[in-house]
Amino acid sequence: MRNQSVPFVSSIILGIDPGSAVTGYGVIAIQSHGFTPIDYGCIRPPRANKLSERFVVIYDSIGELIEIHNPDAVVVEMQFFYKNAQSALTLGMAKGAVMIASKKKGVPVFHYSPPVAKKAVTGTGRASKYQVQRMVQQRLNLAALPPADSADALALAICHAQAAEHVKARKEV
Amino acid sequence: MRNQSVPFVSSIILGIDPGSAVTGYGVIAIQSHGFTPIDYGCIRPPRANKLSERFVVIYDSIGELIEIHNPDAVVVEMQFFYKNAQSALTLGMAKGAVMIASKKKGVPVFHYSPPVAKKAVTGTGRASKYQVQRMVQQRLNLAALPPADSADALALAICHAQAAEHVKARKEV
Repeated sequence: MRNQSVPFVSSIILGIDPGSAVTGYGVIAIQSHGFTPIDYGCIRPPRANKLSERFVVIYDSIGELIEIHNPDAVVVEMQFFYKNAQSALTLGMAKGAVMIASKKKGVPVFHYSPPVAKKAVTGTGRASKYQVQRMVQQRLNLAALPPADSADALALAICHAQAAEHVKARKEV
Repeated sequence: MRNQSVPFVSSIILGIDPGSAVTGYGVIAIQSHGFTPIDYGCIRPPRANKLSERFVVIYDSIGELIEIHNPDAVVVEMQFFYKNAQSALTLGMAKGAVMIASKKKGVPVFHYSPPVAKKAVTGTGRASKYQVQRMVQQRLNLAALPPADSADALALAICHAQAAEHVKARKEV
């Protein structure tokens, strides 16, 4: 089915920038001539939801995205240094939801730190949110600037797609 | 089935002390005369497993425990202050696995901080691991001292069982 809509696809990658409030996602196809955007957007569990229900929304949404797009890899932002341990805990729960949803569907999970993903797309690990949005728009030939969370997710997908050549740490977690 | 093995059960509680290496669990039944231990132990995902696979092991194991014991509530240790943000992130993933597994089975999730759980069982929020083990053994009339991780999980279950009377924060998360 994938090959009907996007010709010569060798690989589909789902990038995810997890968060308990907003989880950005972006799907790209690797083709012989470059990358093609397939889908991108944000998962926003209702704010009135209990914390545990929000993670179920993330878990279910990732499962749905995997069923729709059948990716070969899921790529998650993974940062191991946080100023705030409480936000690290909540983010950990969201990342856990993404990892389990992916593995339960049989899709391998890879991770990259934000500087590595930024560098892969913009050339610098210290790029601003806006620079990432601009470069993702340009690389994927998008008509509009993607929202910041989706842009980060698309950047992760692009980073992974380039990993064989440009990034050493292509490690399944 | 529950009522065949344990008479006059009004409620079954599954306490869980999540961790990426060791996740302790303990199941108790609330009866008219007090608490009865049903089961306790530890989930230890193979150390050779990738991080994402470990969370799947935790997720699946919690799902199995829920199917076996059919608890009315899952109680998770929840600490919001960590010295180390990296361990908070990993713990968050483990907690996320527990919360999603429970909600997917339709079981409500409650949380208590370690001092609240310790106080509920030992009378002091600053009890040592050993004091918790001893008091849990005594309260549940166990022949042997339960392992520390299981004792923490059993303490959470006891804490929740007592919550209506002794603890103000009985909040589903």
